[in-house]
Amino acid sequence: MNEPSIVHLPRGFQFSSVACGIKSSGKPDVAVLIADQPCSTYGAFTQNQVRASSVDWNEQRVGHGKALVINSGNANACTGVQGEQDTETMAKLLAEQISADANEVFVMSTGIIGEKMPMATVEKGIIEASIKASHSEQHVHDFAKGIMTTDSFPKIQSCQFQIGGESFTILGIAKGAGMIGPRMATMLCVIVTDFPLAAGGAKGTSGSWQDGHQRFMGIINRTFNSISVDGHTSTSDQVLLFAPELDTNSDSADILNSQPVFWDALEGVCTDLAKMIPSDGEGATHLINIEVTGAYTEESLRSVAKTIADSPLVKTAVFGGDPNWGRIVSAAGYNGLKFDPSQTSLRVNDYLLFQNGSPVKFDEAEVSRSMKEEFETRIVLDLGGSSDADTRFSATYWTSDLTYDYVKINAEYHT
Amino acid sequence: MNEPSIVHLPRGFQFSSVACGIKSSGKPDVAVLIADQPCSTYGAFTQNQVRASSVDWNEQRVGHGKALVINSGNANACTGVQGEQDTETMAKLLAEQISADANEVFVMSTGIIGEKMPMATVEKGIIEASIKASHSEQHVHDFAKGIMTTDSFPKIQSCQFQIGGESFTILGIAKGAGMIGPRMATMLCVIVTDFPLAAGGAKGTSGSWQDGHQRFMGIINRTFNSISVDGHTSTSDQVLLFAPELDTNSDSADILNSQPVFWDALEGVCTDLAKMIPSDGEGATHLINIEVTGAYTEESLRSVAKTIADSPLVKTAVFGGDPNWGRIVSAAGYNGLKFDPSQTSLRVNDYLLFQNGSPVKFDEAEVSRSMKEEFETRIVLDLGGSSDADTRFSATYWTSDLTYDYVKINAEYHT
Repeated sequence: MNEPSIVHLPRGFQFSSVACGIKSSGKPDVAVLIADQPCSTYGAFTQNQVRASSVDWNEQRVGHGKALVINSGNANACTGVQGEQDTETMAKLLAEQISADANEVFVMSTGIIGEKMPMATVEKGIIEASIKASHSEQHVHDFAKGIMTTDSFPKIQSCQFQIGGESFTILGIAKGAGMIGPRMATMLCVIVTDFPLAAGGAKGTSGSWQDGHQRFMGIINRTFNSISVDGHTSTSDQVLLFAPELDTNSDSADILNSQPVFWDALEGVCTDLAKMIPSDGEGATHLINIEVTGAYTEESLRSVAKTIADSPLVKTAVFGGDPNWGRIVSAAGYNGLKFDPSQTSLRVNDYLLFQNGSPVKFDEAEVSRSMKEEFETRIVLDLGGSSDADTRFSATYWTSDLTYDYVKINAEYHT
Repeated sequence: MNEPSIVHLPRGFQFSSVACGIKSSGKPDVAVLIADQPCSTYGAFTQNQVRASSVDWNEQRVGHGKALVINSGNANACTGVQGEQDTETMAKLLAEQISADANEVFVMSTGIIGEKMPMATVEKGIIEASIKASHSEQHVHDFAKGIMTTDSFPKIQSCQFQIGGESFTILGIAKGAGMIGPRMATMLCVIVTDFPLAAGGAKGTSGSWQDGHQRFMGIINRTFNSISVDGHTSTSDQVLLFAPELDTNSDSADILNSQPVFWDALEGVCTDLAKMIPSDGEGATHLINIEVTGAYTEESLRSVAKTIADSPLVKTAVFGGDPNWGRIVSAAGYNGLKFDPSQTSLRVNDYLLFQNGSPVKFDEAEVSRSMKEEFETRIVLDLGGSSDADTRFSATYWTSDLTYDYVKINAEYHT
């Protein structure tokens, strides 16, 4: 995957990044996003009990905001009280630069766990980056590169849509390729749009914001919460969305806030960005697309897909181009969901390998060739249960294969 | 680890194995165990929803039995109705040879998933093996080799203990090194003893058998259910124990059945055998010993230890000799157990790396050298919660590291 050739820019946001010296490589490591006007903000945060202080800071303030500062190269996680103070200092400093309140500034940190932030360097970087910030495609690319750790490409996706004759844009920027490198963490995503949404917290109507937040979390579950590289949830995962504040006193406020065109467009952007992360998974040679269907809840089907995605035996089989369906079916079997193996069928890259509990004769060489030639390996597991379409659901999960390079990246860095 | 130099033999059991041609390598692939007298039997079975037919067969008959046949090279799993018939045929054939009922014969199969059993070959093997069976140390070694798939060494452990001046013996034989090789499964263990235990089912007092079974399952949870190589539960995992039937009409029956000396000895044998499996894990260069302590239930501490054991980032760090404690602490954090990171401390090979939520300065080169030099890496994570000894528990989990050879074994077999 490469950088998309066209980046659509929503009105009202400025971007930048600078290299201030957190990374010894001299690559950009402090990025800022500044909104021209107060924004509604939505957020999704890692469920890890061990969290970076920036995650706590953001979760307490989500609903409304004006800016975001991200540093890469240091996760500021497992750093105790000093780490909390450093997060607050970062927010205060950017707030001063843009004449906002520190509570309107969000913070993300990604990189080494357990090392103190080099604050003198970071502070210099924040001031420089806020001066440089601008509304241009080049600055979006700079921003995307400034939040990378061991990502091999910047992850940007955007789309435009029309509502009532007016054109709006959604732009998302993500980073992540595993819980990366030596002590590196992890998945971050920022989404900005010029489509107005109800704000939360002190500034907005709590009810409308909650409605939107529920839709937002549904999308997060089907996209960023449906990917893995190594199944290792990080201390720092966050997705933040910035949108202009909707005037909730207007008659059309509720209609706008629940506008399906916007939410569908947002899901499209999130799906594309989410898939880029396992595509860029550490050492990955394949993206694995796992779809599980059957007469079970979407949540339980997603859980089965995740169990298959996390099996090192499935991931090494895909790396080897081996249509080893026993590993896939048996991984589903240990998920915990009770299903009937005699109603279970499996396809890999559209080849039927296992049908209603019994093996199907197939051309191993042909399936193996297809797995080796295509970057994406498609696994479709049907757990049966009922043929009634009303009771059948489907869930998709994406992961990367497990390769020599994954072991190399994660074992050899210090040698 | 090597074969133990001395194998203690319990009275009353005969062993053998033969090479009948299931394995193309020509190595032994059919093994039998024949008891001289009717036995009490206890069993623990895989929780996988997709199970080999032999697992179902055994679970329905556990409590009482006389013999066991094991084939290696074919798991007879995901083979539909034909597979069920083949399991029954194997039991019937050995029963005929020893004048027992087919319901008194247990069956285990390990190897390729989803291929039909070559029954003509297997039947020939069962007859030959039953003729050859004998009560000798050499035959125990033959048996242990006959149940191996890609194990690099046979796994045997035994011990002797005395109760009331009488000497008894426990002998255990296991196999397993992951969900092995190409389409290979998995962990099997047979334990025999001359110490009498209450039988279950039609032949014994159900209450006493249930008491014993509960003790047995407690030991299984602390040993064979506390190991992993790749976290992939197989279709075929089984542990079976054979013991002479206790006369439950005698006054001392309950005392004997709950005799702590026996159960402690059994736990010792099971611990040693269980640790041999990740020590022989596919491609393993280290055994990782993960102990989690704190004021939480033993079950939740074991669950945290398992989450750490299953993290590819932890396993590659151990392979690389990298004291990367952030990966260990963050893996505990995504287990789901709610704990306070500011009360959490971590030691690796007795070096304190993280204390009450903050990093500790340590000599990285020295800790790394210790990790590289020692085969066993010891991780001790204290989640705090209380210093009151009455509320503090501990759980241990064992796994292997993740290496290039693991990827090679599981990705390259078919190329």
